[in-house]
Amino acid sequence: MIMEEMYRPVRKEMDAVEDCLLELSKSDNMVVSQVVSRLVNAGGKRLRPALLLIGAKACGYSGERAVKLAVAVELVHTASLIHDDVVDGAGMRRGTATVNSRWGNKVSVLVGDYLYSRMVSILAEDGDLEMIRLITAATSDMTDGEMRQTLCRRDVNLSERDYLAVIAGKTASLISCSCRVGGMLGQHSNGEIDALARYGRSLGMAFQISDDVLDLVGREETVRKTVRRDIAEGTVTLPLIRALSVASEDERDGVAQAFRSEEGDVPGRVMEFITRHGGIEYSLEKARGYARTCRQEIKGLPESACRDSLERIAGYVVERAC
Amino acid sequence: MIMEEMYRPVRKEMDAVEDCLLELSKSDNMVVSQVVSRLVNAGGKRLRPALLLIGAKACGYSGERAVKLAVAVELVHTASLIHDDVVDGAGMRRGTATVNSRWGNKVSVLVGDYLYSRMVSILAEDGDLEMIRLITAATSDMTDGEMRQTLCRRDVNLSERDYLAVIAGKTASLISCSCRVGGMLGQHSNGEIDALARYGRSLGMAFQISDDVLDLVGREETVRKTVRRDIAEGTVTLPLIRALSVASEDERDGVAQAFRSEEGDVPGRVMEFITRHGGIEYSLEKARGYARTCRQEIKGLPESACRDSLERIAGYVVERAC
Repeated sequence: MIMEEMYRPVRKEMDAVEDCLLELSKSDNMVVSQVVSRLVNAGGKRLRPALLLIGAKACGYSGERAVKLAVAVELVHTASLIHDDVVDGAGMRRGTATVNSRWGNKVSVLVGDYLYSRMVSILAEDGDLEMIRLITAATSDMTDGEMRQTLCRRDVNLSERDYLAVIAGKTASLISCSCRVGGMLGQHSNGEIDALARYGRSLGMAFQISDDVLDLVGREETVRKTVRRDIAEGTVTLPLIRALSVASEDERDGVAQAFRSEEGDVPGRVMEFITRHGGIEYSLEKARGYARTCRQEIKGLPESACRDSLERIAGYVVERAC
Repeated sequence: MIMEEMYRPVRKEMDAVEDCLLELSKSDNMVVSQVVSRLVNAGGKRLRPALLLIGAKACGYSGERAVKLAVAVELVHTASLIHDDVVDGAGMRRGTATVNSRWGNKVSVLVGDYLYSRMVSILAEDGDLEMIRLITAATSDMTDGEMRQTLCRRDVNLSERDYLAVIAGKTASLISCSCRVGGMLGQHSNGEIDALARYGRSLGMAFQISDDVLDLVGREETVRKTVRRDIAEGTVTLPLIRALSVASEDERDGVAQAFRSEEGDVPGRVMEFITRHGGIEYSLEKARGYARTCRQEIKGLPESACRDSLERIAGYVVERAC
């Protein structure tokens, strides 16, 4: 698998992360236990823990704290995914094996809260207040980004700048934080730690834009989640923003109306509109730009298998959407 | 107001808590700002911060950390209330001005998460890892209690013991933690800190049992929230558990059926059943018992206006339901 190849320098540590996650699924509470072990076994890319571990190793760290902190950032990510599954009214997602579709909103909220608590416990046990501050700040940025996105649903006037601010919060912040925390564990200079954090920021942007493209063009078998969910839920992402910005006023009104009425094949119509105006290509080019920036940021790090990994990861996050 | 009277020894500090909460409502994000300031202005008893401050003062502490920590425990409580408002399907609560009824599930989850993050930030800034551990453990207990309650909905076989375990987690844990944290700020012995924590635990039990009674017998004007919500939502509380335990098998089956069918005036029928079997009186006596234990626990503390306050609070939490 591609991931295993890219994560090779930290394979042993990644196995340890997986063991810790499995350990967390052991709870007296049957539902917590079932939900968490299902989440753990569902896999996922484990991008954040991998970046933290690779960043730490790239900066010469080989101690035991990295695995615990890697578990903590993965827990933040998982909790946010579960909370993101909470829906309003009858708009329950169908056909997907989310926590929500099986157990409902209430349990989704509580399991997410449980994982957040476990995360803070792990950080308190690790005992480094600076790490707690950094990861909490990233968590807060994520919430802020998600909130902005929720409030901008079906808003056809959302600008590219607003969109970039949303994804910087909801996605790039924790990815950047993971890289920074890894770097801080090592003995490197502040300059190198900042470079890793900037790498993570650009990587997060590239990652989310590609993810938004994949939501539109991906096939369910490969993406492993419901596609075109963004359009169905009225989440306005870069491909659509781009298409709206180059379309005529009449066309824009048409899309706005389709969003409001929700009648007929809205996803199909919006998708045709995006494709016709080159929204996909434009977005992929943006993502490629961020991936190039990633590679620039880490040029100053000493050559190593870890730096190679970071470069490959930057390439991968965009390629998977092309 | 009764509260002001009981909180008199820490009136100045309580004002400072209120100022901090107001400060927290200032956010770039309009919705966060509106929601948080509405929550702050809605008042509430501020029981947890008051207990922390009174506990600290009873143990001779007069520094600035108490207010910050008091704000932190109030944030945990507020976040849990908001998350508790998240509902499933079309079961939106009517007529109540909850965050949820105005903004929906998605925003409720995110605002709750925002408050949790702020809470951890405050604790990280305070910089005492032991406090972070204690408050996080209480948060985790709360989630666990809420989860158990959610999973026991409409379960007419729930035992009194199970119920007590649920409320120990969802309510008594944070109240006890608030008292302990207050005590730890002072210079008192471990014995006195433990006594405060035990006081808080019994207080929390008395408080929740009374709250559950109030849900059944309170009037909306005084309780300031929708009453008989527990029955409507299928939450099985002590008055019902008691009634079920003394009723005949036929009657029990009738209640179970009413819960399942949800036809007709379920709250009215269940309420009549509870009253007929003395469920209210039994529960109030339990609550009074916990309040008596509260007073016993703090007998060893030196006589002071703060100890008096703690005694009065123990009386108050039960009396308000009588």
